[in-house]
Amino acid sequence: MWARGPPEPRRRRWLRALRRRLPVLGWLPRYSPGWLQLDLIAGVTVGLTVVPQALAYAEVAGLPPQYGLYSSFVGCFVYCFLGTAKDVTLGPTAIMSLLVSSYAFHDPVYAVLLTFLSGCIQLAMGLLHLGFLLDFISCPVIKGFTSAASITISFNQVKNILGLHGIPRQFFLQVYETLRRIGETRPGDAILGLVCLAALAGLREMKSRLPPASHTEPLATRASYLIVWTCATASQNDYRIDPNQELLAIGFANVLGSFFSSYPITGSFGRTAVNAQTGVCTPAGGLVTGALVLLSLAYLTSLFYYIPKAALAAVIISAVVPMFDAGIFRTLWRVKRLDLVPLCVTFLFCFWEVQYGIVAGVLVSGILLLYSIARPPLKVLGQGTLLVQPGSSLHFPAIEHLRDVICSRALSAAPSPCSIILDCHHISSIDYTVVVGLAELLQELRKHGISLAFCSLQDQVLRALLAADLEGFRHFPSWEEAERCGGAEPGGSGAAPFDSTSTSESSLLHKGLIQ
Amino acid sequence: MWARGPPEPRRRRWLRALRRRLPVLGWLPRYSPGWLQLDLIAGVTVGLTVVPQALAYAEVAGLPPQYGLYSSFVGCFVYCFLGTAKDVTLGPTAIMSLLVSSYAFHDPVYAVLLTFLSGCIQLAMGLLHLGFLLDFISCPVIKGFTSAASITISFNQVKNILGLHGIPRQFFLQVYETLRRIGETRPGDAILGLVCLAALAGLREMKSRLPPASHTEPLATRASYLIVWTCATASQNDYRIDPNQELLAIGFANVLGSFFSSYPITGSFGRTAVNAQTGVCTPAGGLVTGALVLLSLAYLTSLFYYIPKAALAAVIISAVVPMFDAGIFRTLWRVKRLDLVPLCVTFLFCFWEVQYGIVAGVLVSGILLLYSIARPPLKVLGQGTLLVQPGSSLHFPAIEHLRDVICSRALSAAPSPCSIILDCHHISSIDYTVVVGLAELLQELRKHGISLAFCSLQDQVLRALLAADLEGFRHFPSWEEAERCGGAEPGGSGAAPFDSTSTSESSLLHKGLIQ
Repeated sequence: MWARGPPEPRRRRWLRALRRRLPVLGWLPRYSPGWLQLDLIAGVTVGLTVVPQALAYAEVAGLPPQYGLYSSFVGCFVYCFLGTAKDVTLGPTAIMSLLVSSYAFHDPVYAVLLTFLSGCIQLAMGLLHLGFLLDFISCPVIKGFTSAASITISFNQVKNILGLHGIPRQFFLQVYETLRRIGETRPGDAILGLVCLAALAGLREMKSRLPPASHTEPLATRASYLIVWTCATASQNDYRIDPNQELLAIGFANVLGSFFSSYPITGSFGRTAVNAQTGVCTPAGGLVTGALVLLSLAYLTSLFYYIPKAALAAVIISAVVPMFDAGIFRTLWRVKRLDLVPLCVTFLFCFWEVQYGIVAGVLVSGILLLYSIARPPLKVLGQGTLLVQPGSSLHFPAIEHLRDVICSRALSAAPSPCSIILDCHHISSIDYTVVVGLAELLQELRKHGISLAFCSLQDQVLRALLAADLEGFRHFPSWEEAERCGGAEPGGSGAAPFDSTSTSESSLLHKGLIQ
Repeated sequence: MWARGPPEPRRRRWLRALRRRLPVLGWLPRYSPGWLQLDLIAGVTVGLTVVPQALAYAEVAGLPPQYGLYSSFVGCFVYCFLGTAKDVTLGPTAIMSLLVSSYAFHDPVYAVLLTFLSGCIQLAMGLLHLGFLLDFISCPVIKGFTSAASITISFNQVKNILGLHGIPRQFFLQVYETLRRIGETRPGDAILGLVCLAALAGLREMKSRLPPASHTEPLATRASYLIVWTCATASQNDYRIDPNQELLAIGFANVLGSFFSSYPITGSFGRTAVNAQTGVCTPAGGLVTGALVLLSLAYLTSLFYYIPKAALAAVIISAVVPMFDAGIFRTLWRVKRLDLVPLCVTFLFCFWEVQYGIVAGVLVSGILLLYSIARPPLKVLGQGTLLVQPGSSLHFPAIEHLRDVICSRALSAAPSPCSIILDCHHISSIDYTVVVGLAELLQELRKHGISLAFCSLQDQVLRALLAADLEGFRHFPSWEEAERCGGAEPGGSGAAPFDSTSTSESSLLHKGLIQ
């Protein structure tokens, strides 16, 4: 049984569909007073984190600090109703702010327009069920991107710590200019910045001495996905995360947020981890966070003018430095060296422009993926009777390679083998191009007096080959049997136990498929 | 042994490399007088075919007739030295002429520039060994393209048969205008055109009564590839065709041809079939053909003015009509219905613009390919102990789907299974994203008290998983053994025969990979 899920009654399926669109219906009826306290504490904690971060990230996006807060409350309210994970929090993030800075040109109007447009695209993707596109962003690309972004964002703040002005945005120019003008450092800014950095590092050190919350590590990895595609895929609940629903939630939050002067928001992995660690029970915690942000907007905006940039810089640096994962290079070297290619490509291109890095990484990993499909592993054994076993399914880009390998082995060997057995054990599906290629291979080998037999065919593959009515097609249940019969009958004539045109079983199958 | 070919001594390899670049070195030393006669006959036959076709195809390309002949001789000479197939002939073709007409704007200068540029691209592709890109054009795309082109080209000539002028180039406008102005038909043109068509159809009918040459059928299918990528892949020889060398040959012919006012040329499948059927022995036949074309250019150009367009139209129509393959729709319905999608997309888009058809077809078949990789078949069996068997290798786009299927089956079932066995029998390679996904799956299931065991791991996959040092990773040689041990130990503790951190075998493997 090749199945995707168990059958279920229609009414339950309908309810499940409604709950999928409005996940709040899933947890609200079960809401218990005990959860309220935990949600309150978590909401306040996240709120106290988001206010300074929002002010700082607005600086990264090249916008006035209040825009950070404008962007921080809509997501909390929307996610409470539409989100599928209890601990994900939407809002401004360091990397999204970096991306926004490329398009906002220090003008909030462009940033708000960007919010509206990206929200519309996310809504459309969610409604069209295009969430599966996220699957095509591989881990090495995410890792390369976040590591490079952490360096770019941190270095971007060095100028604020040193109190330098007029440093260009492009990374390499920035490094050059910052180093060239390091003599112009303003001591006040530098001292304040370094003290803040040290204080934050001290707090982080104290936190790491506490017993670790075991579930935050994989959460962080998974939550990285949030940033690129602004979609949450993390799951700490019994219910599974639905990427299309997350796209809908974020898209709706962005579209709605654009009416409140928000710049584009997404799931924040830092605050999501804080939320999970404080023991949030439902997305209701977001309501508390949102209320806290609104309160700060009401009573604190006049103070924003006095926030020192060097202090914000320290907040940003200490938030993004842990995103740099130096160990990934060693891990990939051990586990899968080829994956170092998309990692390095993404990492390096990101220093040029972050967007180019992601696009280049996705392209490179796509090319490697297609290459592995075009060149599947082929096991070739034997001399008199050649056994050829493809290690995976045959898709159309692979058939020319298979033919080349078989022909070069069969025709260049002296003495040439009298028969070849193609072990289709690992082939779960084939397409028309493969069928045509196999037909031509059969014909070419027969011309040289070499027989080709197929063995261990899965039902679907056998049906396709029988429907194609290949000339001289012979197949056997196992390669042992194929070797016994095929080896004795070079040239492809006679003694074919399931010859496609002679036995009743296969002709039945055949007719069943013709009509 | 996962091998690509047998080892061979260095000197032989070097000689083989030289022969690959200059295939003439392969057959010239073996040239026998007996072959000369056959090559002469084949060369003359192809020459007599190419002269009228070249004149006609120049019309399709929107160029004066002599440009057809300018394009017909360089390819013959170049292919004789650089080509790898004995019967392929390079020159102007109907479909290439159709493509050229979109870019030449009836001005030979643009056509010649196009020849030079496309030749440079082909040379670069051949030198960079990008021939494997041809593998990504599937049969349905080729079939849809050639079928649509045959209709487009034929209908394009109807105006010449009817003697109509000023008909637009775009297919739909062309059909509309031709039908609207059918009353303006010039009787003389129409009678001449229909008589020529009838004569050619009669000749074709006579030919089909002759005993068939068994090897031309697959040749035509394969030679279709020539047209799209202007690369020959057909093989009637003992030596295999090298697509990179073919690209080099065609690229060189185009670059050189551009100095002789040629428009872009490629392998012609009509004339290649004629060549094969006349029994050509080596590419030397091309020298005779080329000489014949040069003779016609020297002595016949003054007569070109008097060739009636209706007669050329009849030549073109009878050459391209057999390219339409009505049976392909029925064949795909029987063999692989999904392949009807790229076929129909290519076929329909080609009526808009031929280039768009090819691009759309390649994109659609690429998307279907990626989708089949992102959603591999999963066999799920059992209740208490769930057996999950992916039907093919796991690439990074598939891991989220696998996790979703396993989690939804494991967590939604009541009673939930106590253990899950992942049968990795068909998995020949995995990447880092898959490893991370499996680690998270292990963790998630353990949180719900469900154990996950791996069985039937291939060496490479086992090594990658051991190198990643997954927490709670347990594997067994077969699923029977996994079921016996895993079922007895829910929760993942104890009794793991190859626990990644305890036994000597695996730790050896592990250390071997760390360093």
